[in-house]
Amino acid sequence: MNKLSVLPAGVSASALAKAIEEFSGILGREHVIVEPERLAPYRKIYIAVAEDAVAPSAALMPSSVAEIQKILAVCNRHKVPVWTISTGRNIGMGSAAPATRGQVILDLKRMNRIIEVDAELGSALIEPGVTYLDLKDYIDEHKLPFWVDAPSPGPIVSPIGNTLERGHGYTINQDHVYSFSGMEVVLANGEVIRTGFGPLPNCKSWQAFRSGYGPYIDGMFTQSNFGIVTKMGIWLTPVQEGAKSFVVYYNRREDLAPAIDTFRKLRLAGTISVSGSVLSGLTLLGFGQRKSSFYSGTGAIPREEVDALLKERGLPQWRVGGVVYGDDEETTIKLKKIRRAFEATNPAQVLIEDSSGVVPSWGEGDLASATGQLSLDAFRILNFVGGGGVMWHMPVSAMKGRYVEQLCTMSEGILRRFGFDYLAMNWCNDRDMHQTTGIFFDRTDPAQMRAAYDCYDALMQETSRAGFGNYRCSIHYMDKAAELFGPELRSFLRSIKRAVDPAGILAPGKSGVHI
Amino acid sequence: MNKLSVLPAGVSASALAKAIEEFSGILGREHVIVEPERLAPYRKIYIAVAEDAVAPSAALMPSSVAEIQKILAVCNRHKVPVWTISTGRNIGMGSAAPATRGQVILDLKRMNRIIEVDAELGSALIEPGVTYLDLKDYIDEHKLPFWVDAPSPGPIVSPIGNTLERGHGYTINQDHVYSFSGMEVVLANGEVIRTGFGPLPNCKSWQAFRSGYGPYIDGMFTQSNFGIVTKMGIWLTPVQEGAKSFVVYYNRREDLAPAIDTFRKLRLAGTISVSGSVLSGLTLLGFGQRKSSFYSGTGAIPREEVDALLKERGLPQWRVGGVVYGDDEETTIKLKKIRRAFEATNPAQVLIEDSSGVVPSWGEGDLASATGQLSLDAFRILNFVGGGGVMWHMPVSAMKGRYVEQLCTMSEGILRRFGFDYLAMNWCNDRDMHQTTGIFFDRTDPAQMRAAYDCYDALMQETSRAGFGNYRCSIHYMDKAAELFGPELRSFLRSIKRAVDPAGILAPGKSGVHI
Repeated sequence: MNKLSVLPAGVSASALAKAIEEFSGILGREHVIVEPERLAPYRKIYIAVAEDAVAPSAALMPSSVAEIQKILAVCNRHKVPVWTISTGRNIGMGSAAPATRGQVILDLKRMNRIIEVDAELGSALIEPGVTYLDLKDYIDEHKLPFWVDAPSPGPIVSPIGNTLERGHGYTINQDHVYSFSGMEVVLANGEVIRTGFGPLPNCKSWQAFRSGYGPYIDGMFTQSNFGIVTKMGIWLTPVQEGAKSFVVYYNRREDLAPAIDTFRKLRLAGTISVSGSVLSGLTLLGFGQRKSSFYSGTGAIPREEVDALLKERGLPQWRVGGVVYGDDEETTIKLKKIRRAFEATNPAQVLIEDSSGVVPSWGEGDLASATGQLSLDAFRILNFVGGGGVMWHMPVSAMKGRYVEQLCTMSEGILRRFGFDYLAMNWCNDRDMHQTTGIFFDRTDPAQMRAAYDCYDALMQETSRAGFGNYRCSIHYMDKAAELFGPELRSFLRSIKRAVDPAGILAPGKSGVHI
Repeated sequence: MNKLSVLPAGVSASALAKAIEEFSGILGREHVIVEPERLAPYRKIYIAVAEDAVAPSAALMPSSVAEIQKILAVCNRHKVPVWTISTGRNIGMGSAAPATRGQVILDLKRMNRIIEVDAELGSALIEPGVTYLDLKDYIDEHKLPFWVDAPSPGPIVSPIGNTLERGHGYTINQDHVYSFSGMEVVLANGEVIRTGFGPLPNCKSWQAFRSGYGPYIDGMFTQSNFGIVTKMGIWLTPVQEGAKSFVVYYNRREDLAPAIDTFRKLRLAGTISVSGSVLSGLTLLGFGQRKSSFYSGTGAIPREEVDALLKERGLPQWRVGGVVYGDDEETTIKLKKIRRAFEATNPAQVLIEDSSGVVPSWGEGDLASATGQLSLDAFRILNFVGGGGVMWHMPVSAMKGRYVEQLCTMSEGILRRFGFDYLAMNWCNDRDMHQTTGIFFDRTDPAQMRAAYDCYDALMQETSRAGFGNYRCSIHYMDKAAELFGPELRSFLRSIKRAVDPAGILAPGKSGVHI
């Protein structure tokens, strides 16, 4: 066995070595990863911190709940913390790395059974290692009339992992934390519970009815270190009779607020079928090509130059995109209403029905994603500057034009202060809008690493102070993000943590929760 | 002060008297209720247990969070438990009474402020004492384009109370536990937390975005004794462009299963806009008149006589009802699809667009409820036999025809065994169906009380054993209902209870959770 160079806080080298020995006894030597070359994938991050700062000490690959239970017994004995991942693709937020150095990665990707797909209800009981692509393949193979609802990095990520992080997709079941029914959870003490109606023998509705009897606890296990989720019932989206998309272009920056308000009204009324996107012109450009291909300066592209670039390429300041479901007649009626509503906001253009080819990439993207197709296209933006650095800032606003405008202006100002471009991506739900703001930087350039780190801090602090909550954050920022919400809630969460994981072996620091 | 004749378990008369004295100092004498005549409304129950068995010792009527905090300090000091109610209209499940005798009722009806209605987002931040009628009056007065989503006893009950019990309404936001954003909760130690983004100063999305950052804990406070919810952000339903209803009649008992399967497909596809009802013919009759007006025998009406009665009155064996939203064109398209789908199941009749006057009461009821109108019509069924006794059994099935049929057959068999009629009410959601089965009995007749009590037990036990979970139950049955889900989940809930309420002062026994 290699000498372990990375240790969890408060764990001695000998205690860790002993634990590793015991893990090997449980899993077999090949499923206990300690060699630097085999650990490398778990160290690979995109965020602006040194790999060493959040390096795991080891990684474990159990294949069953029983093995997890045995692992946790060892962890409790030696006070060794485990950081659970499904597929570990939390890209731009920490990937597979733990919130604090030295935690042992509990990698569940070998637990990849699709246990049951219910072709009547449209639900799938799966394990954490199943990816959206696995699920789609299963559905296609069995010719079932359902779509998977995948997030942008869909093919390669886990529905369980994405749901636990409260990710979003693009169809009717897009708000993932509200689109599942039933969990199996291994607790820190090794006990296994099922939520909802799952504990009932011969249960006929575990994947159909979510909340069960008594306190409804599923949410507690999301963005959480209270337990290890080993099964979940994911809801599938029935294939719709038809789908069409629309795109609205605006050539003035100040058109954002009325566009948002119009989207909200149409979405709340149910005319627009799913969440849509409001992207800036520079974002559209960024999906198409690298910054260096059209700008040779350093730092953020000045606003006037952005404006000139967009004009030159025929790109709008803002692009609103959305999708409607229904048969031909129904989508025609809806699109007529949508056209009428947006035309009242004086846009540059309203395109409906078929937006393919009109703008780089995201025209088709809306419709493809909203009809259950999987793609890694969204990853193209990661290469905007090159150098392998990206961090996502994810503030949320009520979906009101003036708030969204305030948030966008604030975000752009902060990014520019640190020399970064603002590629605005606003995801419009019904009552809320969540923004995905990327900081793109060169991880090999220490100055950019520093600027990105500081910029992330400024984004989190300043948007929070202005009243925009951040619903998710990079692993290195979890404590600070929790602080932004004050001591009361955090103290309540800590009291639960102490009750359910007294040794603090499950993902210490996850979402800022510690024993 | 009167001598207190009812005591909470483990609390001495002198400790309670001391606590009452201190409560009076906090609230003023008039808001501490101990006199038998003033306590009577809190003792009034419809379930098949003696009032004394679940009688409260006193009731408190705080007007603010600060008063609740002070009350809890007294409770912790004297180990006096409080049972929180909003308006206390949990009719047929225990009304305002506590799960165990002697608990002090914490009646929040004086906390009845509508703090804010957001006319852009369609949300209302309210206190527990607000009723659906209060909220509707506010909306009407301010001419806002929203409907409240009320359950059957809508006018007189609290949106917070109904949501915490995971009740259902009839519009888009009908699954109440998924139609709110943000809570304020007073913990047993007197600390106050806000969930979601609520803790953020100047938060711009407390009522817009539900899950906040870190573990999503709101569900924990539903059907729960982990805290006292003092504010909640309820979502309102945007007034729809139009609404039409449809009704399908079946004259054969065996038509139930295909009807359910057809409803599920249409609902999952989004063609039917909200949950619908599948009611038996006897249920329709029961909404219209008392049993004694058409049957003079004792015990359950024999099946053949039910069949003859229905035939004679032109009532179907099953009536499926549902609603579609949209403008005239859209609802016409949807109703055409609905007609086509149900006609394939060979019904006696499919009526669309306007069902008023066709059957007693529930024809109009569907459309009125689905368009935000409030009514107490549903209460009419409470008088089916007379004598003030009713208990609701609420089992859930996956929405599959064969399961629903199995559950209905089983329920009818159990009820008949104990001499009660089966008035089948199946509420069809998308993936699940929940049944509201009433046991109607004369509370003044000891034999009927006994039969109703035993029948409830048999319904709970036998449906659970067959795999149908019960999502809610009468106060007297909470421990036994929890037992049906096995020891693991219950032990987890107990560990949380001990952490957040070590003295066990909050509603001991609620949902079977104790310290």
